[in-house]
Amino acid sequence: MARNALGRELPDTFAGRAVVPYQDPWSRRPAGDRATRPLRRVDPGDRKIMDTLRAAIEASGLKDGMTISTHHHLRNGDRLLNHVVRIIDQVGLKDIKIASSSVHPVHAELVPAIREGVITGLECGVNGLIGELCTKGELSCPIIVRSHGGRARSMATGEVKVDVAFVAAPCCDEYGNMNGFTGRSAFGSMGYAHVDAQYARRVIAVTDNLVPYPVAPVSISQSQVDFVVKSEQLGDPAKIVSTTTRVTTDPIGLQIARYAAMVIEASGYLKDGFAFQTGSGGTSLAVAENVRNLMRRQKIRGSFGCGGITGYFVDMLEEGLFQALFDVQCFDLRAVESIRKNRNHVEISADTYANPFNAGAVVNRLDVVILGATEVDVDFNANANTESNGYLLHNTGGHTDTAAGARLAIVVAPSMRGRLPIVRDQVTTITTPGAVVDVVVTERGIAVNDRHPDLKAELLRRKAPVKDIRQLQKEIEAITGTPRPLEFEDEVVALIEYRDGSIIDAVRRVKA
Amino acid sequence: MARNALGRELPDTFAGRAVVPYQDPWSRRPAGDRATRPLRRVDPGDRKIMDTLRAAIEASGLKDGMTISTHHHLRNGDRLLNHVVRIIDQVGLKDIKIASSSVHPVHAELVPAIREGVITGLECGVNGLIGELCTKGELSCPIIVRSHGGRARSMATGEVKVDVAFVAAPCCDEYGNMNGFTGRSAFGSMGYAHVDAQYARRVIAVTDNLVPYPVAPVSISQSQVDFVVKSEQLGDPAKIVSTTTRVTTDPIGLQIARYAAMVIEASGYLKDGFAFQTGSGGTSLAVAENVRNLMRRQKIRGSFGCGGITGYFVDMLEEGLFQALFDVQCFDLRAVESIRKNRNHVEISADTYANPFNAGAVVNRLDVVILGATEVDVDFNANANTESNGYLLHNTGGHTDTAAGARLAIVVAPSMRGRLPIVRDQVTTITTPGAVVDVVVTERGIAVNDRHPDLKAELLRRKAPVKDIRQLQKEIEAITGTPRPLEFEDEVVALIEYRDGSIIDAVRRVKA
Repeated sequence: MARNALGRELPDTFAGRAVVPYQDPWSRRPAGDRATRPLRRVDPGDRKIMDTLRAAIEASGLKDGMTISTHHHLRNGDRLLNHVVRIIDQVGLKDIKIASSSVHPVHAELVPAIREGVITGLECGVNGLIGELCTKGELSCPIIVRSHGGRARSMATGEVKVDVAFVAAPCCDEYGNMNGFTGRSAFGSMGYAHVDAQYARRVIAVTDNLVPYPVAPVSISQSQVDFVVKSEQLGDPAKIVSTTTRVTTDPIGLQIARYAAMVIEASGYLKDGFAFQTGSGGTSLAVAENVRNLMRRQKIRGSFGCGGITGYFVDMLEEGLFQALFDVQCFDLRAVESIRKNRNHVEISADTYANPFNAGAVVNRLDVVILGATEVDVDFNANANTESNGYLLHNTGGHTDTAAGARLAIVVAPSMRGRLPIVRDQVTTITTPGAVVDVVVTERGIAVNDRHPDLKAELLRRKAPVKDIRQLQKEIEAITGTPRPLEFEDEVVALIEYRDGSIIDAVRRVKA
Repeated sequence: MARNALGRELPDTFAGRAVVPYQDPWSRRPAGDRATRPLRRVDPGDRKIMDTLRAAIEASGLKDGMTISTHHHLRNGDRLLNHVVRIIDQVGLKDIKIASSSVHPVHAELVPAIREGVITGLECGVNGLIGELCTKGELSCPIIVRSHGGRARSMATGEVKVDVAFVAAPCCDEYGNMNGFTGRSAFGSMGYAHVDAQYARRVIAVTDNLVPYPVAPVSISQSQVDFVVKSEQLGDPAKIVSTTTRVTTDPIGLQIARYAAMVIEASGYLKDGFAFQTGSGGTSLAVAENVRNLMRRQKIRGSFGCGGITGYFVDMLEEGLFQALFDVQCFDLRAVESIRKNRNHVEISADTYANPFNAGAVVNRLDVVILGATEVDVDFNANANTESNGYLLHNTGGHTDTAAGARLAIVVAPSMRGRLPIVRDQVTTITTPGAVVDVVVTERGIAVNDRHPDLKAELLRRKAPVKDIRQLQKEIEAITGTPRPLEFEDEVVALIEYRDGSIIDAVRRVKA
């Protein structure tokens, strides 16, 4: 056991891996060369099409103890990972690790395979049941949660070696050229899968839309793909992308959004060249709406919008408020349509998006990011992984990456959820360190990290409801009461990796 | 000394490298993993802009004995390589190797730097003076000639390690995102440079068109670029791309083109899904014109056109005769305009284009390629590197790659050049082995490789002027006479590498 720089107690090893305690956001530097994959020789006439997924898996050389991956652009509509694991089980393989970009509630179907030792580790964060069961002690499967940039880094450094990557290809030809733009499972950007196509030892494209050679435009190239398999529908279209993402109508969300916009305006970053990321939640979109109105009024021409992309950002691009969009994942159909048509809507890999160990990620160029959290604490640490009941229910996504990259990382959250206050003495789990969180905005006031006295002064000058974060906590607890501390067993069920590969927190089994 | 499978005498080593004799086009297979490059960490606020190219070179860590690269999309209008070498000389570096994608006549300016030991090797083929001087014994600088696919392979395998790559960026932002689509030095596809951006230890973008962040669309990404330098004009626009590429009006060229089209029609490949490559020469374009007319008449919808792209192929794409273009290099302004606008005009890396050691190159999917040659021989070996005087004057380009990839590789050439016959007992230099050359077309007849008895029979049925290649040779020599064999010294000045890394021929100093 050791404590990291934030005082979090960590095991020395986990899932056979030595634990490197988190120190600070910046000092850890990479050594050595990027990971690689085996050279191939594919000659004219060689075929890549396999009749079944099972045949492709067998041809890939997948063996007991190896690691597979998928990507989560199909989100909760994904059928591929469940299908892959069913076949792995049929084939009789054991001790397989999953290093997908994310796992969703739909993958609750994997629970029996975990119980039976077919799947013995998750090299990725999880959304939904699997994390909950692990934190309750009802399922045993070590989990290492990584941010999108951290996942790209782990593959680029070779810390995570994916033996066989399964790439869901909405539009694919028999030689493996693919894009996500068209077809009944179209999801737009293939951003996360680019990393797998580059580093996995074998790459299997799985498509429900095999088109005549060649696919154009090409998102992932034939020169990276070993096998192509035709499948039933890759995903449930109703759950892949939402048809639309909407601004909240909730008065609390709208109040938060107004305050967040005040912070952005006061920051001085809202000027020509402004670069902005926000998620797809209703409050985030309300912030985006306020920002858009400010940009229109002040005739500001922004630089880029980034991240998971919504129709909202597409509108801003088309209106000329952004010069370009950098898109690692489309959140709605309007974004899918845009990335297919508009060349200033640029598909980027998760590596280019957020890997701290390349020659410069897109997040480094952000001015402002709007983030959610289940909790924050008085040191501005943010929790995006566990709920206040201790259950691991959420993957990190781009949370830590964008917070580290942006000049101003604003966490927006209602001051309480149910009867639980959002501001705590200590967050249950640290996802993103306070060292890279700049402002917390609730409907009851704005807390500015002490690192930014000028911003605080400017907000006060503008008569914004700035409060010391402990004062904010006190006001909220006056309503909710002070929550009873959760109790945990010693057993670590998951590690939360900081984007540089050090461990920022451990998730323990909740006491029954 | 050893002889390879084609009887060519080779040294055991050359320029410090062990020589692997060529065996056949297919059997050499790669071992191990792809090459890689060092991991980086670039944080928010880190700048990549350097004030001068000299500052960037110094920051790159370039040292005596190292290898640099440029790419030849600027062709004979390129100013960058000369500029880089001038600065390397000023800085006082010695023993630098050049591993560019090609060197052009304009780089004759490097001769003094070679004489003075600043440049001590060319890991690439040359067009023009440097090769001539070396073959005359007037300059000493070992040259290893590689095809486009072979160059990509040599970098992917790590046989050639580029320490610092200089990428000419017609449109670039301060963080290194770039494309070749716009700006006064616009040349279109950056295909060759993609390989450098992936494998070079350091990447320096040099631009005469620095635009506000971010460039979109992105051909080479910020996540691969270490430094950005603003420069004077990258190239002489009049020499970068031709404003137009034209079909020949020469009657001999037109006759050859008619015969070549007969061969294509007789081959049975000219049907829906047809994939085609041809160069930018007037005769090649005349073949393309004939093919286009056949496709129109027969309502054939082709699959893709490939290679260096001309306006001619753009017209065919726009007319629906091709589904897509795969473009590693734009040959004229119409192609540059098209790749900027048309998403079915797809930029591909030299690796995807032609590397034999990846998961499947585009050349593997070609039905027909039209190639030139300075000579062919009775075994269908083709020479694209040396002239009949023995001077090394031409780089290989995609010659060997496309011949190996295509189902039908047709060499088109006038039966004589000056007073020299095109068909020889043995070519002066083997660029592309007869094992992958299928047909030789001259204005005096068509010679079909014995591997294709069906094609020969079909051509005869169509009353095409099919001749045995020795018969063709005899007819030509009846006019030109039999040329006196060239005499060579023992000294090897260059190796011709087959695309798999084995050596297919050596170029020796011509006897004075």
